[in-house]
Amino acid sequence: MKAMKIVEFGKPLELSEVGEITKTKSNQVLIRVQAAGVCHTDVSVRSGVIYKRISANPPRLPFTPGHEIAGIVEEVGDEVTGFAKGDKVLINPWQGEGNCFYCKIGEDQYCDSPTWLGITTDGGFQEYVLSNHNYVYKIRNLSPYEAAPLACAGVTSYRASKLARLNPSSYVAIIGAGGGLGSMGVQIIRALYGSIIIAIDVNDEGLELASKLGADYTLNGRKEVHQEVLKITNGRGVDAIIDFVGSENTIKSYYTFLAKLGRYIKVGTFGGGLPNEAGLKIHSMGWQFIGTLTGNRKEFLEVISLAENGRIKPVVTKLRLEEANEALDNLERNKVTGRQVLIP
Amino acid sequence: MKAMKIVEFGKPLELSEVGEITKTKSNQVLIRVQAAGVCHTDVSVRSGVIYKRISANPPRLPFTPGHEIAGIVEEVGDEVTGFAKGDKVLINPWQGEGNCFYCKIGEDQYCDSPTWLGITTDGGFQEYVLSNHNYVYKIRNLSPYEAAPLACAGVTSYRASKLARLNPSSYVAIIGAGGGLGSMGVQIIRALYGSIIIAIDVNDEGLELASKLGADYTLNGRKEVHQEVLKITNGRGVDAIIDFVGSENTIKSYYTFLAKLGRYIKVGTFGGGLPNEAGLKIHSMGWQFIGTLTGNRKEFLEVISLAENGRIKPVVTKLRLEEANEALDNLERNKVTGRQVLIP
Amino acid sequence: MKAMKIVEFGKPLELSEVGEITKTKSNQVLIRVQAAGVCHTDVSVRSGVIYKRISANPPRLPFTPGHEIAGIVEEVGDEVTGFAKGDKVLINPWQGEGNCFYCKIGEDQYCDSPTWLGITTDGGFQEYVLSNHNYVYKIRNLSPYEAAPLACAGVTSYRASKLARLNPSSYVAIIGAGGGLGSMGVQIIRALYGSIIIAIDVNDEGLELASKLGADYTLNGRKEVHQEVLKITNGRGVDAIIDFVGSENTIKSYYTFLAKLGRYIKVGTFGGGLPNEAGLKIHSMGWQFIGTLTGNRKEFLEVISLAENGRIKPVVTKLRLEEANEALDNLERNKVTGRQVLIP
Amino acid sequence: MKAMKIVEFGKPLELSEVGEITKTKSNQVLIRVQAAGVCHTDVSVRSGVIYKRISANPPRLPFTPGHEIAGIVEEVGDEVTGFAKGDKVLINPWQGEGNCFYCKIGEDQYCDSPTWLGITTDGGFQEYVLSNHNYVYKIRNLSPYEAAPLACAGVTSYRASKLARLNPSSYVAIIGAGGGLGSMGVQIIRALYGSIIIAIDVNDEGLELASKLGADYTLNGRKEVHQEVLKITNGRGVDAIIDFVGSENTIKSYYTFLAKLGRYIKVGTFGGGLPNEAGLKIHSMGWQFIGTLTGNRKEFLEVISLAENGRIKPVVTKLRLEEANEALDNLERNKVTGRQVLIP
Repeated sequence: MKAMKIVEFGKPLELSEVGEITKTKSNQVLIRVQAAGVCHTDVSVRSGVIYKRISANPPRLPFTPGHEIAGIVEEVGDEVTGFAKGDKVLINPWQGEGNCFYCKIGEDQYCDSPTWLGITTDGGFQEYVLSNHNYVYKIRNLSPYEAAPLACAGVTSYRASKLARLNPSSYVAIIGAGGGLGSMGVQIIRALYGSIIIAIDVNDEGLELASKLGADYTLNGRKEVHQEVLKITNGRGVDAIIDFVGSENTIKSYYTFLAKLGRYIKVGTFGGGLPNEAGLKIHSMGWQFIGTLTGNRKEFLEVISLAENGRIKPVVTKLRLEEANEALDNLERNKVTGRQVLIP
Repeated sequence: MKAMKIVEFGKPLELSEVGEITKTKSNQVLIRVQAAGVCHTDVSVRSGVIYKRISANPPRLPFTPGHEIAGIVEEVGDEVTGFAKGDKVLINPWQGEGNCFYCKIGEDQYCDSPTWLGITTDGGFQEYVLSNHNYVYKIRNLSPYEAAPLACAGVTSYRASKLARLNPSSYVAIIGAGGGLGSMGVQIIRALYGSIIIAIDVNDEGLELASKLGADYTLNGRKEVHQEVLKITNGRGVDAIIDFVGSENTIKSYYTFLAKLGRYIKVGTFGGGLPNEAGLKIHSMGWQFIGTLTGNRKEFLEVISLAENGRIKPVVTKLRLEEANEALDNLERNKVTGRQVLIP
Repeated sequence: MKAMKIVEFGKPLELSEVGEITKTKSNQVLIRVQAAGVCHTDVSVRSGVIYKRISANPPRLPFTPGHEIAGIVEEVGDEVTGFAKGDKVLINPWQGEGNCFYCKIGEDQYCDSPTWLGITTDGGFQEYVLSNHNYVYKIRNLSPYEAAPLACAGVTSYRASKLARLNPSSYVAIIGAGGGLGSMGVQIIRALYGSIIIAIDVNDEGLELASKLGADYTLNGRKEVHQEVLKITNGRGVDAIIDFVGSENTIKSYYTFLAKLGRYIKVGTFGGGLPNEAGLKIHSMGWQFIGTLTGNRKEFLEVISLAENGRIKPVVTKLRLEEANEALDNLERNKVTGRQVLIP
Repeated sequence: MKAMKIVEFGKPLELSEVGEITKTKSNQVLIRVQAAGVCHTDVSVRSGVIYKRISANPPRLPFTPGHEIAGIVEEVGDEVTGFAKGDKVLINPWQGEGNCFYCKIGEDQYCDSPTWLGITTDGGFQEYVLSNHNYVYKIRNLSPYEAAPLACAGVTSYRASKLARLNPSSYVAIIGAGGGLGSMGVQIIRALYGSIIIAIDVNDEGLELASKLGADYTLNGRKEVHQEVLKITNGRGVDAIIDFVGSENTIKSYYTFLAKLGRYIKVGTFGGGLPNEAGLKIHSMGWQFIGTLTGNRKEFLEVISLAENGRIKPVVTKLRLEEANEALDNLERNKVTGRQVLIP
C-alpha cells in the first residue's frame, strides 16, 4: 500500500510503497483510510520537535503521521463487537491501555501508556490503518473528509469550549479564530452556548471566515484590541479566552481583558509561558488559567454528534495523499484557513 | 391608572380605574408597564385554583394578575443602586425575602416567604407596578413585548432545559412544543445543546411552528408516537423528555420511550401524577423524574442574554390590556401558538 | 475446583467440583477468589426472579453466582497490561463491551451488551474466576473480605450518595440504614458530605449499627417518623432520601417529608412503584425521583480509594463458601446487619 | 462604645471611645459584637497595603477593621424579615449591592460595588456593628468565638477546597497547613472529600496541628519535599495543591509535583506570580491555575453548617479587643497556629 512516511526527522515525508497490514489483533479493527486531516501537530511530528514536549518516546522510523482518520472498516479482530466490514467510521486516535488511573477515570487521552495514532504508532497518511475497536466511532451523515477534522481539531475545540464554562451571559474571545481549530471553535461555541463571540486573528481572511461561521465581533490582532474588547463588553472584559495560538505574545496581550472569574483556556502550543504578574491579581479577579489537550471518549462522541446533527460543518480543503508535504508547508507558513484533508 | 382586576375568583377580570402608586419603598423601583405576557398560570389565578396547588395564600381581592412584565423605570427608592428613570427593564417576578434557606442558596424562586408579582402581590395587568430592585434587569436590544415572555415562559423553559442535561449526543422530546412554553423550549434547546429535537403536540399548527423554530422531527400526539420515536432514535429512546403539558395522559404515554439514564422533566401542571409502574424499572433504567418551576436569578439573567444576543426570539401576538379576558379564554381553549402579550 | 452452583432456579445452590479454568483470553485476567460478598441480588439470582426485571437473559445452568469478588491474580492474557501474578485485586463486575453509547459516555454499568459477573456469566462463589482486565482494580491496604463488599454494596451506595448532591447544609434520610448497603451508605455520607444523617430502619440492631457508623439521628420505621423528621429539620424536611429498601411502603411513607428541591434516590428493588400523587406537587416542590444501579469505572475507583484511605470500613461477617445458602437465607429473612462474605 | 481604630495607615490601631450607632437603615441589622477573628488581611488593612491590591478605595480614617464577626442581634430595620433581638448570628462580611452582574449570578463576593465589613466600611473590632440583613446568618450550636473564623478563614478554605474538585481518589497538598486558613482547610478536606492529605508547612508546630486535624502526611517545607511527594503518590504527583501562602517561592517550588489534570489553587497573597515555564507543559499535563477569594452566600451557609454539624472545629486563641495590635503583630511574625479571636 501507499504511505507518506517520515524517513528522517526534519526532512520531507517520502512516498513509500509498504507491505499490506496482514494481522488484525483480537481487539482491533482494520480501516481503509478515506480521508486524513492535516494538523499543526503533524508539523511537529515531521520535525520531531513534539517528542521533546510530550512524555512519549519518538517512534522508530520510517513512520507514518496522521491522526485525523476517517474510513471504512475492512476487517475486524475476533473479539470485536459492534463493527462489520463496510461500516463508515472515524477513529479516536487518543487511545489508552485501559488500566491506568486516567483510563479508569474516563480521561484516557491522558493515559500513562497511551497509543496515539500518527504520533506514537503509524497513523493515517497511508491507505490502511489499525485501531483498537473501543476507539472507533460509526458515522452516518458525514463524508469522510468532513469527519476527519473532528478527530483532533473538533474534539480539542469542543473540550476547550466546555472548560470555558460558557453560558448566554458570557463574552468569549477566540484567539486564532480563523485557523483549523479556531474555525471549529467558533462554530462549536455558536452552536452550543449562546455566548457573545469576539473573534481575534492576525489574518483578515481568517476573520471573514470567523464572521461567516458565527462570530459576533471580529478584531485584527495586529491592531489595538484591549480597548475594543472593553467597549464591546461594557467595561467588564470577557468571561473566557480560548487561545488557539498560545504564544508568549497572545497570552501576555490578552489575559489582561479577562473579567472577574474569567477563564483563560490555553490550547495552542506556540511556546507561550504563563504571565508571571497575573499571579498578583489572580485572587481578587478569581481568574483561572487552564491547559487542555484533545478530549475523552465521551467528548469525542459528542462532537461527532454535533456534526452529524448538522450543527457544525468542518471547513475543509481537499488534497491528495501525495501532497502531504505541501499541506504541512502551508501550515508552517500560516497560509491555511479551515482544515486541509488528504485523500489517499 | 387603568388595571384589569380580579374582583371575584372564577369571574372575568374587570377593567378598573385605580389610584396611582404613590410610594416607592427604599429598595423598590416603580415601573411603567409597556407589555405584560399572558401565561397559563394566569388562567389559574383568575379561577383561584392555583392557590390550592401552591403554599401561598390567595391575595386580597380586587387583585391584578400578570407576572411577565416589561417596562420603563419611572421612579427609584432611596437605597436603590444601578437604576435611573427611563431605563428599559424586565422584572423577575419570582422574588424572595433574602434570608431563608432557599434565598441563601441562590434558589429564591423557592423562597419560604416569596413575593410573586401577579400571584401573591399586584402584577402587570395595569399601567404601573412596583418591584424590589434586586429583581429588575436592564434590557438593551429587546422590545418590551419580546422581553415580557422571558419572565416566565422563557426562564421556565430555560431551567427545564438545563435540568435535562442535554448534549449533542442526546435526543430530546418536547411535549406541547407549539405552546407558549414549548415554542420557547424548542428555540432554547436549538440554540444551546446541539441535541436532536423531537417536537410533539396535538396541534398541527403548533408542530409547524416548532419545525420552523428548529425541531428536527415533529410528531402529532394524537397518532402513534412510541414506535416513531424508537425509529428516530435507532431503538435507544430519548435521553430527555420535557413535558410542557404534564397531564396524566402525557406522562403515562411518553415516559416509556425514555432511554437508559433518561430524564423526564415535568413542567406542565395539567394534573398528571407520577406513573406508579415506572418505579419497577427506575433502577435498571437509571431514570429520573424531575419537577421544576420558573428559575433563579442567574438563570433569569442567562435567558435574557440569550434573547438579547439574538439567539432566540419569543413568538408573540399583541393584544390591548382591555383584552385580557379574551387572551385568557384563548389559552383555556388551547387556541394559542406562541405567547400573547397585553399592551396597556 | 470447588463451586457453589445454581442447578435449578428456586432451589438451593449445590456444592460442585468443576474443572479448572484453563484458558485466559488475550484481554482477561484469571483470579483466585479469596472473598465473595453475598448480596440481596444473589437471592434473586438463586430464584431466577432477577431475569424478569433486567433486560439480560438468564444464563445457562448450572451457573455460579457472586459478583463481589476479591482475590489474587493467577494468570494474565497476552494483551493485558499493568497486572502480574500475585497482585491483590478487586473485580468490578459491571463490565461493558466498550463500543455502545453507554460505554462511550463512561457509564458502562448501563452497557447494551453487558457482562455482569455472577449474573450473566460465572461469578465468585467458586475458587477461580475470569475477568476482563479493564475492570480489575489493584488493592493495597485492604484485606480481601473488606474489599469484596465494595464491588456492589460500596459502589452502589457511593453513586447513590453522589446522585443525592449533598452538602453540609443538607439533611439526608437513609432508609434501611442497618443493612449491607445502608451501613455502607451511612459511612460514605459521614465520610464525604458533612450532612446531617437521619438513619431509618425497622430493626433496632441495625439502627445501633448506623449510629455507631456516624448517623446523627436514628428512627425506627415501625413508629411515627414523619413528625420526628420535621422536628429534626426545623420543619423544612430532608434534602434527600436514599432508599435502600424501595418497597411500595417505604417510598409512599417517606417522600412526603422531602424538602423543596429534595431528591428521592431509589436504590432498593423491593417492588415499590412511584407515588402517583407526588406528580401534583413535583413542580412547586422541585422534587426529583431518581433510580440508580451500581456505578461506573470512575466511581468504582473512588469508593475503593475511600476504603483504602481508611475513611470507611465495610462491616463484615465471614462464612465458608459452602455456607452460601445459609447466607442467602439470612438475607431473605432480613436477619443480616452489615455484609456477609464467603471465604473459599 | 469601644473601638480599635486605624488612625493612620501603617501605625498601630488606637483604642477609641466612639458614639453609639444610633440608626439602623430599613434593611439593616445592628449586632453587638461578641467575637472578632483576626486575619492576615487585617495586617494589610492596618498598613493600607491592601488598597493597592484590590479595586476598592481606602476608607476614610479613623476606620475600624475586623471582618470575622459573630454576635447578638440588638436591633432590626423596619424591612428586615427573619431576625429578632437576641438572635445569635454570624455576619457574612462580603456584601454586594444586589444588582450587578456578579450579584445576579450568585457570586456577590465579586460584586462591582461591594461593601466589605472591616475593609471598605467599619468592621468588628468594636462593640457594635451594622450589616445588611441578607448577609446575616443565624447560629445555633456554636459559640461566637468558634463561629467568627468561619466568616473568612472558613469560607475561603471551603471555596478553595471546592475549586480543587477533590474526591477519594485524589491526593491534595496543603501549603501553609498550620496557619489560620490552613488548619481550617485540613479539617474541611478531611471532613468532605476522603482524599489523601499532604500537609506542608515551614513550622513544625503547625505540622503537628495539621496532623492532629487529619492530615495523612506532613512535610516540612524547609526540607526536600518534591521527592517525598512523588514517593507518597506512587510517582503520580498530587491532584491538587491548595496554597495558603502564595509566595513566589511556594508556587515555583510546588507546582512541579502536580499530577496530570492537577489544579493549583492559589489562596495566599504573599506576592507570588504565576510560573512562566509552566505554560509549556500546561496542555500536555492538563493543569489549571486558579485564584480565589472568600466565598458566596451559598458557600457561607454550607461552611457554617459544617461547623454546626460538628464536622469541623475552628482552632482558636482568645484575646481581648484591646490586644488587637498584639494579635496583628503575631501574624506578621508568623507566630500563630490556628486563629486568634478578639473578645470585646
